[in-house]
Amino acid sequence: MTNEKLDIAIIGGGVSGVYSAWKLKEKYGDKKKIAVFEGSDHIGGRLLSVRPPGIDNMIAELGGMRILEDVQPRIKALINVLNSKLPAAEQITLYPFPVDEPQNIAYLRGIYLRLEDFTKDPSKVPYVLPEGEYGKTPGAIIVDAIEKAVPGIVEATDAERREMVKTAKYDGVPLYQWGFWNLLYMVMSSEGYQFNLDAGGYDSTLVNWNAADAIPWYLSDFGVSPVYKGFTNGFQQVPITLARLFEEMGGTITLNKKLEGFEWKDGYFELYFGQETVIAKELILAMPRRSLDLLAPNCPKLQEIKPLIASVTGRALFKLFSTYDTPWWTEIVSAPPYPPIVAGRTVTDIPVRQTYYWPADNGEPVTQGKAMLLASYDDGDNTGFWDGLRAQRSLAWRIGRAKTLTDPYVGKDDKLGVRKGLAMFGLNQDWTTYAAPRRMVEELSRQLAQVHDIERTPLVKSAAYRDWGEDPFGGGWNSWNIGVKSWEVRDKIAHPLTDCPMYICGEAYSDAQGWVEGALQTADIVLKKLIEQSVPVMVK
Amino acid sequence: MTNEKLDIAIIGGGVSGVYSAWKLKEKYGDKKKIAVFEGSDHIGGRLLSVRPPGIDNMIAELGGMRILEDVQPRIKALINVLNSKLPAAEQITLYPFPVDEPQNIAYLRGIYLRLEDFTKDPSKVPYVLPEGEYGKTPGAIIVDAIEKAVPGIVEATDAERREMVKTAKYDGVPLYQWGFWNLLYMVMSSEGYQFNLDAGGYDSTLVNWNAADAIPWYLSDFGVSPVYKGFTNGFQQVPITLARLFEEMGGTITLNKKLEGFEWKDGYFELYFGQETVIAKELILAMPRRSLDLLAPNCPKLQEIKPLIASVTGRALFKLFSTYDTPWWTEIVSAPPYPPIVAGRTVTDIPVRQTYYWPADNGEPVTQGKAMLLASYDDGDNTGFWDGLRAQRSLAWRIGRAKTLTDPYVGKDDKLGVRKGLAMFGLNQDWTTYAAPRRMVEELSRQLAQVHDIERTPLVKSAAYRDWGEDPFGGGWNSWNIGVKSWEVRDKIAHPLTDCPMYICGEAYSDAQGWVEGALQTADIVLKKLIEQSVPVMVK
Repeated sequence: MTNEKLDIAIIGGGVSGVYSAWKLKEKYGDKKKIAVFEGSDHIGGRLLSVRPPGIDNMIAELGGMRILEDVQPRIKALINVLNSKLPAAEQITLYPFPVDEPQNIAYLRGIYLRLEDFTKDPSKVPYVLPEGEYGKTPGAIIVDAIEKAVPGIVEATDAERREMVKTAKYDGVPLYQWGFWNLLYMVMSSEGYQFNLDAGGYDSTLVNWNAADAIPWYLSDFGVSPVYKGFTNGFQQVPITLARLFEEMGGTITLNKKLEGFEWKDGYFELYFGQETVIAKELILAMPRRSLDLLAPNCPKLQEIKPLIASVTGRALFKLFSTYDTPWWTEIVSAPPYPPIVAGRTVTDIPVRQTYYWPADNGEPVTQGKAMLLASYDDGDNTGFWDGLRAQRSLAWRIGRAKTLTDPYVGKDDKLGVRKGLAMFGLNQDWTTYAAPRRMVEELSRQLAQVHDIERTPLVKSAAYRDWGEDPFGGGWNSWNIGVKSWEVRDKIAHPLTDCPMYICGEAYSDAQGWVEGALQTADIVLKKLIEQSVPVMVK
Repeated sequence: MTNEKLDIAIIGGGVSGVYSAWKLKEKYGDKKKIAVFEGSDHIGGRLLSVRPPGIDNMIAELGGMRILEDVQPRIKALINVLNSKLPAAEQITLYPFPVDEPQNIAYLRGIYLRLEDFTKDPSKVPYVLPEGEYGKTPGAIIVDAIEKAVPGIVEATDAERREMVKTAKYDGVPLYQWGFWNLLYMVMSSEGYQFNLDAGGYDSTLVNWNAADAIPWYLSDFGVSPVYKGFTNGFQQVPITLARLFEEMGGTITLNKKLEGFEWKDGYFELYFGQETVIAKELILAMPRRSLDLLAPNCPKLQEIKPLIASVTGRALFKLFSTYDTPWWTEIVSAPPYPPIVAGRTVTDIPVRQTYYWPADNGEPVTQGKAMLLASYDDGDNTGFWDGLRAQRSLAWRIGRAKTLTDPYVGKDDKLGVRKGLAMFGLNQDWTTYAAPRRMVEELSRQLAQVHDIERTPLVKSAAYRDWGEDPFGGGWNSWNIGVKSWEVRDKIAHPLTDCPMYICGEAYSDAQGWVEGALQTADIVLKKLIEQSVPVMVK
């Protein structure tokens, strides 16, 4: 393969990579030789849908798990297009993904609340909230604060908001020079802010990232009543379908092929994979900041654009799933009587942070038989808590070795097989690859018992986790740094050096960071630029 | 100077560097040519004592500010030795440094307490503490928890503790494999833990660092009733005195000389400073992890010991001083009547975190006339809050340029001169070099008013800050990582490659991380090894 010449090489088999590959193949057909190289053993990047052992009707989303149809037109349209090409049995289907159910628990500052107490019985809420914040949901408090900082932005459309933030100022300082945390502190109480950190479920959404990006991002994602949708066959079906369609048209995808460096020489890229060199005319790097950082020492062309690469910060996200013989949470009783807890999430300020009562793959709550929790979904400093209960973050990626798990938790269901039904969608990842360590599961059980105010939880049957802070991802999502004009960097980094056909896409440099929508947005920008630029390159 | 051959080159003019230089010069006199190279324009590293404008009797400690005489024999002995060599007018003198005065404020979870309420009126403390934690000070709660985890350790001496932690286990897992946060969660309540984070004043002391190190460290530093001492002429007097004594014996110190890389060739080190090369037989790198990380790409010998270097984590520390025409905090009245607040610190969970009512340089509280606050002393995520209110962390160190401050706060006293009295001790750093930005001071004033429950604070007359997370320090202190046997790494990294006379010292790899005591401990280890090894090297 050393002398093979590609027209377009795409590095990274996440959504932005395979989507770009598929779109380019649709456009150019056999006229261009296009290949995708993926360093891991599977397609999908931070979408990772895995079947737990012993449970045939549930899929654990170890990575991205949902979309917001109303405000994410690209992923919605893409699913429609893909479904038009897929046979009936392989359709990509969605279900409503519940989040904040009124009877769910909020265990905050050592006090047991139900989510409905935030508005129905605010005197129980253990935060000293001033008038104007008292009696509101966390999301409503932030939305009100944002409206104070940028009057009119809440009622605006997403496109209008994106325009407003380019020129808006607060206290004479342009919005993009404000940190979101600093700005919120100007327009809301410190206790209101802390209530949001704790009850909102995330540490990293309200940190000091670029306020001009955080505001429209927050309003789309959390602000209004968001309607989330989950994926019947797992979200990973989307990139796997894209990859399959690309291959069916003649594109090639190589897994376990990790780019270690590249150079731009005499109008061609030399791509170095171990001892092997691949030549390509055009190059798409479909990867987040951390992956670019890891590559940069061996890539002069990336050295030239370090400030662009460094314009975002990777943010850790951690997910830990556990399975049980029964949905024990439905049996928790407390006075006053609430309907059983069956779906959506519970929140707390202790390190488990968010617990989702995972639905069956038809979206229905599980009320009997085998059941599963997204037991901890957390970020920020809390990922450091779970870090301590596993083997050290390994250098596996950098030194090219498989991760080994010492002292894994072995539950009763870990000997059970997994129904192979997912294979028809190309999902081939084995749950046990992501097995959680024993100490992590023990601490999880202790915290789940505390959050649910019960003596102990039933025995965990199996557990798996994924920390997206690890290499090569460096975060579950990325956030724009203070002082950056993201609307300029976003377009600039797509094709950063005018005389070199190197393109960069992925959620990291998008308006919808952390969402597949952002991956698609930046891929669309890259595709437009690449197609426009392509003619002179083809002449060579 | 290119062909000058040194016997010993010492890189870094912080305490461990100049202490090593002085000790070696004392031993070898003219028999060895010894030189110190310092990248910045002053001696002292993270000790930085600066006179504020318009105040003749106070010194702002922008870096380290105190010692614990009872448990820090090395610094105590060093001060005695230095004083025996110094004239009466230049003696290094100490004053008692108050911390937790009973009438001081604890503003936690939106509730105004006084510190004495923790034990005298615990029903006011807004944390749900179980029996056994209720009614205790934060420190006492942690000490009790530590005793539960490692029975007998509280009553042991520091040396005994250091032995105990090498073999102690909890729940079958060796202590050095436990994260401190994880371990504390096993032996105390989550609310007790949060109370300690909030009221203890620091985020980073209780994070998930190596429990085998954290426990003796915590017990020495915070556990018993610690007796702190401050420095009449500023802590920086100690390294400056060491540097002067070294020079008086014929040693050379060069400031503004930044090492950019080195190689070990044919029995000599080639040290690269810009275009200039210095040759040395032996090399002491007296620097923290981040400085070693920055050097490593240009130093093959540091590449060989990457895992040793990476065994600690830098921890940000941020200090912001502000001056006023009067000590307004002494006039705060509240019911029930408390004595005036005059000294020690106030704590809060909002980003200012700790406010010290700074003493005069004789250690006395300031009750009238010009006055100063260490207005914010914070760490962890809170440093990110203040980050947003200044120009971006600059690349100044790496690209070798002076920092420029845009939009500094200009107070009425900034035009006043500074009494030059400090110069007799060699302290030459200008307060305005560290001037705080306008937005930072405005936000500080807002938070100080909130913490003190007053409408507004009087006008700030001048303000200066230092964030030790910046290059080349990468943190105010360093903490041992989970899984590391620090007692082995500490001795190993002092002389990591047996066939190469490269030595490493500094607080980062000590038993007393974050303290000058740790810098001296590791310097002593290096000196012992270097002196033992020196003979064969001299033969060459």
